[in-house]
Amino acid sequence: MRLYNYWLSSASWRVRIAMAYKGVAYEYSAVDLVRAGGEQHGDGYRALNPMEQVPTLEFSVNGTLYRLGQSVAILEYLEETVPTPRLLPEDAWARAITRQMVEIANAGIQPLQNIGVQRYIQSTYGADGRAFAAHWIARGLAAWEALATQHARRYLVGDEVTLADVCLAPQMHAARRMGVDTSCFESLTRVDALCAMLPPFITAHASRQPDAVGVG
Amino acid sequence: MRLYNYWLSSASWRVRIAMAYKGVAYEYSAVDLVRAGGEQHGDGYRALNPMEQVPTLEFSVNGTLYRLGQSVAILEYLEETVPTPRLLPEDAWARAITRQMVEIANAGIQPLQNIGVQRYIQSTYGADGRAFAAHWIARGLAAWEALATQHARRYLVGDEVTLADVCLAPQMHAARRMGVDTSCFESLTRVDALCAMLPPFITAHASRQPDAVGVG
Repeated sequence: MRLYNYWLSSASWRVRIAMAYKGVAYEYSAVDLVRAGGEQHGDGYRALNPMEQVPTLEFSVNGTLYRLGQSVAILEYLEETVPTPRLLPEDAWARAITRQMVEIANAGIQPLQNIGVQRYIQSTYGADGRAFAAHWIARGLAAWEALATQHARRYLVGDEVTLADVCLAPQMHAARRMGVDTSCFESLTRVDALCAMLPPFITAHASRQPDAVGVG
Repeated sequence: MRLYNYWLSSASWRVRIAMAYKGVAYEYSAVDLVRAGGEQHGDGYRALNPMEQVPTLEFSVNGTLYRLGQSVAILEYLEETVPTPRLLPEDAWARAITRQMVEIANAGIQPLQNIGVQRYIQSTYGADGRAFAAHWIARGLAAWEALATQHARRYLVGDEVTLADVCLAPQMHAARRMGVDTSCFESLTRVDALCAMLPPFITAHASRQPDAVGVG
């Protein structure tokens, strides 16, 4: 398996954590989202992922190449094909709440913080892309905290790590990077700190990736 | 079951189509996203859905109230609890491609076209929120079309309707509403027209909902 990704991309980072949990080995193909406007917009990468976003999972079976974009599609595919250890709870309702939290990150926050949108805000309105991102991050985390207050036990949904926790770690990192004060989100902060000590979260951390630059 | 939703909301509309396919009856609770700044931001609705977005699915079992937000979490929950007729293919790879397309709508386009973001663009930058939405819709549909060219048969993924088609219909409607020329997206246009003739798509159409106003 090969994962096209970028060290600081929160969508990439989610998938790296899940790969580490599932024990799936992969080749790391760095896609530099920053240099020269972003490698993701080049013809080569667009052929792999028409959204021109990371991550993309690629593998070949009997000479046929398979390529999959969209981090949540990849996470669900991993969960179905490498079920152990599970990252979605066994109970259908707990799975539903997990996916609600996953989508708060994936659809509620991340699309409004990503580099392409920040660049558009800057180039089209001459405004601060980071401030735009920070606004939606703060709003999304407040909603997530409200849900966490209802549902969290040791982790965000029950006593085992789920995909909700997998999505939380990179999102909290992005929040701090964009200058959002996360200290008021008590449940999220507690769980994030707990996850930071777990080996799959350590392995997948942005700062440990081959393309990491500076402090992240 | 009760579905808090809004006739023109594409996230609501997706869930209505799936409910119609699964034959799940529900009470329709309209949440007016437009009047007086939006009922979704009131204290009452925020208690149901901390993201202040539609849809929210609500039901009670033995006196306990269950509430679920995020359209994709709801779609997956329906698929698991009412498996027939299936809206995710049986094959794991076809399911993965279906979810990739679902997330192009759900995370790639919809968060950048929704009413809250359009209002923010208008109020913060004095710019045209519709133009912002149209930019990201055109970009997302181009990527979706590229995938559809690879994977579509009768419908977007194979010969049966999947969640990808369920997400396409409201997205194409929103595109036209925002002034995006969709005629260049040949596969998407063909499948959208095909779906428009199917009873669950007809039942769930924005214009048929009790809170529909004007022409939609």
